[in-house]
Amino acid sequence: MTAGVHETIASFRAAMDAERSAGRTVGLVPTMGYLHEGHASLVRQAAAGCDVVAVTVFVNPTQFGAGDDFERYPRDLDRDVEIASAAGATHVFAPGVDEMYPAGAGAGLTTVQVRGVSEGMEGAARPGHFDGVATVVTKLFNIAGPCRAYFGEKDWQQLQVVRRLVRDLDVPVEVVGCPIVREHDGLALSSRNVYLSPGERRAATVLHRALLAGKASLSPSSAGGTQPGDPVEAAKRAVEPEPLAELDYVEQHGDRLLIAARVGTTRLIDNLEL
Amino acid sequence: MTAGVHETIASFRAAMDAERSAGRTVGLVPTMGYLHEGHASLVRQAAAGCDVVAVTVFVNPTQFGAGDDFERYPRDLDRDVEIASAAGATHVFAPGVDEMYPAGAGAGLTTVQVRGVSEGMEGAARPGHFDGVATVVTKLFNIAGPCRAYFGEKDWQQLQVVRRLVRDLDVPVEVVGCPIVREHDGLALSSRNVYLSPGERRAATVLHRALLAGKASLSPSSAGGTQPGDPVEAAKRAVEPEPLAELDYVEQHGDRLLIAARVGTTRLIDNLEL
Repeated sequence: MTAGVHETIASFRAAMDAERSAGRTVGLVPTMGYLHEGHASLVRQAAAGCDVVAVTVFVNPTQFGAGDDFERYPRDLDRDVEIASAAGATHVFAPGVDEMYPAGAGAGLTTVQVRGVSEGMEGAARPGHFDGVATVVTKLFNIAGPCRAYFGEKDWQQLQVVRRLVRDLDVPVEVVGCPIVREHDGLALSSRNVYLSPGERRAATVLHRALLAGKASLSPSSAGGTQPGDPVEAAKRAVEPEPLAELDYVEQHGDRLLIAARVGTTRLIDNLEL
Repeated sequence: MTAGVHETIASFRAAMDAERSAGRTVGLVPTMGYLHEGHASLVRQAAAGCDVVAVTVFVNPTQFGAGDDFERYPRDLDRDVEIASAAGATHVFAPGVDEMYPAGAGAGLTTVQVRGVSEGMEGAARPGHFDGVATVVTKLFNIAGPCRAYFGEKDWQQLQVVRRLVRDLDVPVEVVGCPIVREHDGLALSSRNVYLSPGERRAATVLHRALLAGKASLSPSSAGGTQPGDPVEAAKRAVEPEPLAELDYVEQHGDRLLIAARVGTTRLIDNLEL
């Protein structure tokens, strides 16, 4: 069955209120649309755990910086509704920018600012990005009132920001992190992969290969000695031979190794549990 | 009947969830305690409009600055529960600082920041004050899930900040502003009035008198001419003769005249519709 599509906050909120009033649990899957199998896996997990599933499709301007790809970010709502519905979504919320930011999306807005986990990595590379994420996620939580919300681990730092936000602001929602979905050659699924030329597409596998090299370095035999190697250094070395990739960072946080690199003009991120 | 008192978020949240699940509307009255007739009037208005009324009593450290009166702010929970219950409250939420800020109330927290209406006046006099207010109010909304929330117009700028926050973040609550309650001599009720010595208490009426002088100046006959006067200037002139009062600001926003002054060591605010 095709999910019901809502373009206004009032319509979506009323539908969610009605579902909750009828005793049904609501799962929320916030996305920027142009859905792929990674999103579909979130929707399926939400459908397995909740009575109804709402997928939000909103390319949020406030989480894009001046040099970012807001304008060219891929959009295809009809396709999104099909993919979401096939995966088990019962509602799609696809508001316009004016609906979400009637006073304009610029300065002057109320913002939600998460500290600590929002600093460094993506927070450093994209100033203001996580303020935009935290603010729009807070709005979506307030509109939908979900029992659970599903986020992919591909945006690992974003997941930590959302978890922190929920804890610090006592948001009544359970945040569920879901595993990264990859292409057969290891590339993490991303709506931004459509930007890649065929040559860049081949080069883009270097992110996952670097993470695997980092993980392998922890095994002494692979490091060519009796001591475990340094996953960050091993991952950096693995990126060097790839001329189309320009490394932004490799960092280890706890047992998570994270990488960001530009492949051509496309900035990609990935991460792996060590 | 005496209101049920909750000291933990879990207990209060469960009670509010149960009320809502039973189909009862929840009215929320956020306070810093040491309740007076102004608070009681908020509770009565909430009881008239909602099935159950929750009064929160929390002296929120994050909305006090370094030089502010957080430590000496008056506290008396037993008395608060009596007053709230008598006015119709069914629940009192009185958490400790550790319960509301388990990671500490200092930097590093997620904050909600309202722009525009939070600037100037109290926002200028008390840097960070409205970030603290917006953040704790967001937490209380998330914990209680009220249908309506009641705020006094005495803290007029705070009321605008809360209204803006609710609109910008799509919080599913109706904000109700309630009229200022005054002593017989015009002094606006405030928990901070207990700080005043007898002489300061007499001098403190100058705030209301100044607002009345400002309003009177709009009537040409009172201004001693055929042109209406300037309410801000008239209010300022009315404060000058009072040696115990040190004016902070008089400002007019729309049809609202607002004043802040220090009387002895106590900072007081008031406002009046012109």
